[in-house]
Amino acid sequence: MALIVQKYGGDALGDKGKGRVRSPDDPLFGAQFIPEKYKHIARIVKRTREKGHQVVVTVSAMGDATDRMLAMAHSLMDKPPVRELDMLMTTGEQQSIALMALALEAAGVPARSFTGLQVGILTENLFGKARIREISTEKLSSALDEGYTPVVAGFQGTTEESELTTLGRGGSDITAVALAAAINADTCEFYKDVDGIFTTDPRICPSARKIERISFDEMLELASLGAGVLQSRSVEFAKNYDVTLHVRSYLHDEPGTLVVPEEPEMEDVVVSGVAFNRGEAKITLLGVPDRPGVAAEVFGRLGAAGILVDMIIQDIARDDDLNDISFTVSRADYDQALELAEKLREELKGSRVVGDPSIAKVSAVGVGMRSHADVASRMFKALGEAKINIQMISTSEIKISCVIDESQLEDAVRAIHVAFESDKRFVGNKD
Amino acid sequence: MALIVQKYGGDALGDKGKGRVRSPDDPLFGAQFIPEKYKHIARIVKRTREKGHQVVVTVSAMGDATDRMLAMAHSLMDKPPVRELDMLMTTGEQQSIALMALALEAAGVPARSFTGLQVGILTENLFGKARIREISTEKLSSALDEGYTPVVAGFQGTTEESELTTLGRGGSDITAVALAAAINADTCEFYKDVDGIFTTDPRICPSARKIERISFDEMLELASLGAGVLQSRSVEFAKNYDVTLHVRSYLHDEPGTLVVPEEPEMEDVVVSGVAFNRGEAKITLLGVPDRPGVAAEVFGRLGAAGILVDMIIQDIARDDDLNDISFTVSRADYDQALELAEKLREELKGSRVVGDPSIAKVSAVGVGMRSHADVASRMFKALGEAKINIQMISTSEIKISCVIDESQLEDAVRAIHVAFESDKRFVGNKD
Repeated sequence: MALIVQKYGGDALGDKGKGRVRSPDDPLFGAQFIPEKYKHIARIVKRTREKGHQVVVTVSAMGDATDRMLAMAHSLMDKPPVRELDMLMTTGEQQSIALMALALEAAGVPARSFTGLQVGILTENLFGKARIREISTEKLSSALDEGYTPVVAGFQGTTEESELTTLGRGGSDITAVALAAAINADTCEFYKDVDGIFTTDPRICPSARKIERISFDEMLELASLGAGVLQSRSVEFAKNYDVTLHVRSYLHDEPGTLVVPEEPEMEDVVVSGVAFNRGEAKITLLGVPDRPGVAAEVFGRLGAAGILVDMIIQDIARDDDLNDISFTVSRADYDQALELAEKLREELKGSRVVGDPSIAKVSAVGVGMRSHADVASRMFKALGEAKINIQMISTSEIKISCVIDESQLEDAVRAIHVAFESDKRFVGNKD
Repeated sequence: MALIVQKYGGDALGDKGKGRVRSPDDPLFGAQFIPEKYKHIARIVKRTREKGHQVVVTVSAMGDATDRMLAMAHSLMDKPPVRELDMLMTTGEQQSIALMALALEAAGVPARSFTGLQVGILTENLFGKARIREISTEKLSSALDEGYTPVVAGFQGTTEESELTTLGRGGSDITAVALAAAINADTCEFYKDVDGIFTTDPRICPSARKIERISFDEMLELASLGAGVLQSRSVEFAKNYDVTLHVRSYLHDEPGTLVVPEEPEMEDVVVSGVAFNRGEAKITLLGVPDRPGVAAEVFGRLGAAGILVDMIIQDIARDDDLNDISFTVSRADYDQALELAEKLREELKGSRVVGDPSIAKVSAVGVGMRSHADVASRMFKALGEAKINIQMISTSEIKISCVIDESQLEDAVRAIHVAFESDKRFVGNKD
């Protein structure tokens, strides 16, 4: 008998309403309520219990409820105080837990819903993005002991003064992992509309395969894959508290992908997956003085403006005491970053600023890279044979990333995937 | 400077959606959100504060949110556990307080929202219709001291174990009165879409006038007037805790009706108002034995079936050791009551059961009746002159009620109103 935390997101509970037109002052607020979705989840929970397991369920707000409530708030005020936003937002998950408990009861599964406050999810005193300080397990344990399936509101907590807080982006995933850690659950299952984590996006590369087991560190590097299947914050949390994650589909009963602490045989896998980011931009400051403090000045100013810089490359190969500094930013920040770079060029008396708003990043990820020296060269060779020019390179212990022109991204993903998929040790292969 | 509790109901906050067709599985749940309604209330609160008063606001769920959530619950389960219903329902008021606080902040009024749990509305451990045990004033007082306008969720409370409870029908009004009692407010204002309490329904009797001041007891007797303007439970609560109520319109700034402890000069007012109930039914058991226990048997059985009996008349004028027993019930209960009466007739060997499903009750109410002996005769005379047959009569210290044929109800209301409105001491008159 195992103790399992099951997390169901907004899409499992309702309709995100993609494609429907909705303005903030749309007279009808609230997400779509689809009873069948609740009943479907109740059947999954029931099936899990019938296998002899104990289940703790945690849920998000249904469908696009959170977005719609935000729109309501903004129709009253431009910059709503975050305390009141949290007061409003937390109702989304509270509705979900009550309805989920009813669906479970209706399916013959004794259930009891709990808000974050009730279950004792204590957070720091910060609205909008509080971190969890402590979870008391008393209520959960006694509910489980009495045979109930507890249904816990995700995304929310409470301060010692009973103020309602939310955990920020990906907060419901954090709740699930934190609950699993607190009650020592065997697994924390994330029910999604995908089968698991894939070696790359199957829409780009048809030979992409579902990964059976992957380490936390690899998962963090692959976080960009699969349309944000898991938020990196919750993966880090799981890693720190050693919580086994299971990303699986709510559409069928097949196992998905297990995210686990690194295992010795994982080193045999050279490349676990090929990740990519579209929508990046590159800026190069040419001919700035090669003296201490220049880089600090450049990236200090960008940071102060709230611009997140991803890759940085400083070319020190020039022979004229001048430097070229290249960096990448999210495309949304491109215009602002370009403007700032122009100012910096003037101040630093640099020669020129060159910008490219249409680049992309492709990365090969795998803990096996530590012990296999040829991964980089195999990756570069694959790109070269596909006639893809590499503009920038950055590496970490378990990742190699290349910046390329965005128009060649899909070719690049396929080329790298093909280069490693025949590898006997490529993830998913059994030899 | 006064301390005022202001209560705004669902119609002040949203659209009840009357006339719109909605099925329980209507894909769009939630009430209509109308930002302008929140902004309008914010202006009333601001105006009150600008007069130098301190304000505590309490709100219901907006529009038909509560009904719609009930429909959602029932689409999952026939008889949802009340604990989970309360979990669901309390989100309605929580959304209202957050949005109300935002509207106030946007209007430049520092505001802070509080759930029932946060403000410390402690109830008994009973879901769906808990009674308030205690209200702690600490949070409210310190919010007021810091210059905030507290916005408190109506209808909800919490047990000592942090379980969320609701107060049952009219619960938001109870919250308002209880808050006013707890913080010793000078007035508890109810903002409605009517100007106040009227001497009778102006739609039936054009000469109906707004009552300026009325006693709690009279208000209780008139509770049926004005489409349930005030729930009797909250009036009783106000009477017990000596809280002055002010029923007024949110559409303009004119004063409405004050409901206050009885004042000596109120005795001068013979009739304060003419109330009525449609939708009643009468049943008569003819020729049942005139022996002890028969009435107890009859009404015990009706009560056990959950049928609320209003008026009872037992005619002991017969000379054959047999009795006639007449009683009135709500028309919704008529069929069931008639069936039961038939059974009782058989068991008691009564002669006949006579039923009339289309009667109505008209009542004259006024504390002045205690000191004016002629009210009953004036009322009967007025009805007689209008050729209205009185079927049953019942009286209390401050009320005379007559059961009549429903088709004559409006004539009866007008006749009684006219009989007393020329009276110098009729409410609303100044001499």
